[in-house]
Amino acid sequence: MTAKPATDRVRLRRLHERGSYDRGTINAVLDAGCLGHVGYVSGGSPVVIPTLYWRDGDNIYWHGSSASRMLRGAEGTEVCLTVTHLDGFVMARSGFHHSANFRSAMIFGTPHKLNGDAEKLKQLELFMEAVFPGRWSQLRPTTAQELKATTILAMPIDEASAKIRTGPPGDDEEDYALPVWAGVLPVSVNYGRPEPCTRFAGTAEPPIVSLGLRTTN
Amino acid sequence: MTAKPATDRVRLRRLHERGSYDRGTINAVLDAGCLGHVGYVSGGSPVVIPTLYWRDGDNIYWHGSSASRMLRGAEGTEVCLTVTHLDGFVMARSGFHHSANFRSAMIFGTPHKLNGDAEKLKQLELFMEAVFPGRWSQLRPTTAQELKATTILAMPIDEASAKIRTGPPGDDEEDYALPVWAGVLPVSVNYGRPEPCTRFAGTAEPPIVSLGLRTTN
Repeated sequence: MTAKPATDRVRLRRLHERGSYDRGTINAVLDAGCLGHVGYVSGGSPVVIPTLYWRDGDNIYWHGSSASRMLRGAEGTEVCLTVTHLDGFVMARSGFHHSANFRSAMIFGTPHKLNGDAEKLKQLELFMEAVFPGRWSQLRPTTAQELKATTILAMPIDEASAKIRTGPPGDDEEDYALPVWAGVLPVSVNYGRPEPCTRFAGTAEPPIVSLGLRTTN
Repeated sequence: MTAKPATDRVRLRRLHERGSYDRGTINAVLDAGCLGHVGYVSGGSPVVIPTLYWRDGDNIYWHGSSASRMLRGAEGTEVCLTVTHLDGFVMARSGFHHSANFRSAMIFGTPHKLNGDAEKLKQLELFMEAVFPGRWSQLRPTTAQELKATTILAMPIDEASAKIRTGPPGDDEEDYALPVWAGVLPVSVNYGRPEPCTRFAGTAEPPIVSLGLRTTN
């Protein structure tokens, strides 16, 4: 651990050698993907909704329709946004020591809604460019009506932690001699071959993707 | 939609043509993976924790160390367990109509802890066999101490919904003629080449994996 937890609730209680409060580590986990899960409390009950997110400096953003129940439910109230990348199955010599390699980040905070059109447009462009560099300028301009129909929430990455497991299984010493296969089965998220829209008649190339994901095919 | 929502909070409010309350649809989403996000309320605040899960009939299960803060925090209180598979980026002719293809399932409920050793062992075996068919019998038996150190939570899949988006972008009619590339960029979770533990000296083959995921390499 290279930094202290911002608050007690974000402090890792168990296996804290896997935890980090270092902003660089947290940012690296966030920047490696774009799918997160937002939790908020609605009528006393927890609700967890998947969302795409992006980061700009010290803030994390997510967006959707202005009519979205999640965006209206989360704005101005406490949320927990969690991002998890499953990197592998850790196959030990006993069931008990099976595990998973993963990188996760958890951010607590209270999101606020972006209001200015210029700020909203800037963030929409940043999101597009984070995933598909160069694409934003190829698209027709966003209309005022579309901007109004889009809600963007922003939240500072202040109260956050990362948790990471890497490496081989850790077995009981007397189990290492057992003949069962042991090691790591890597898991990754990959892009497949682009599938053009049947109504696409142009000659433009498919977009180049960022995010550090690997391409198959 | 082929079935009615069990309760009002699980009813999809927007784009409800993407929603389903059909158990077969929900089960198919759950059975296609093993990574979920559990949300619960702790001290009035939402907490979202990643976990591996499995399904047995009408119940969903997850587990971990008996010392786990998440398992102790979630037992006997309301949770929302959400599972999301990102299937593709939907690239439209405008920024506004960009979307994602995905399958998600959301389950509300109050989990309870499994108590009997026989029931716990049965579920641990089911979990292992769901991911790695044939592996459980290759492992040394689980000890009583390991079983005691493992907490398993179970929750009925009663109050649940699925939400699925598939297919090409839906653009504004006047935008289809624009020359920008449009279509779907598929995203999938893949297994990579197994990495044997450096202390593995046996001749056993790597496990065969289930879950319907594709294998790369």
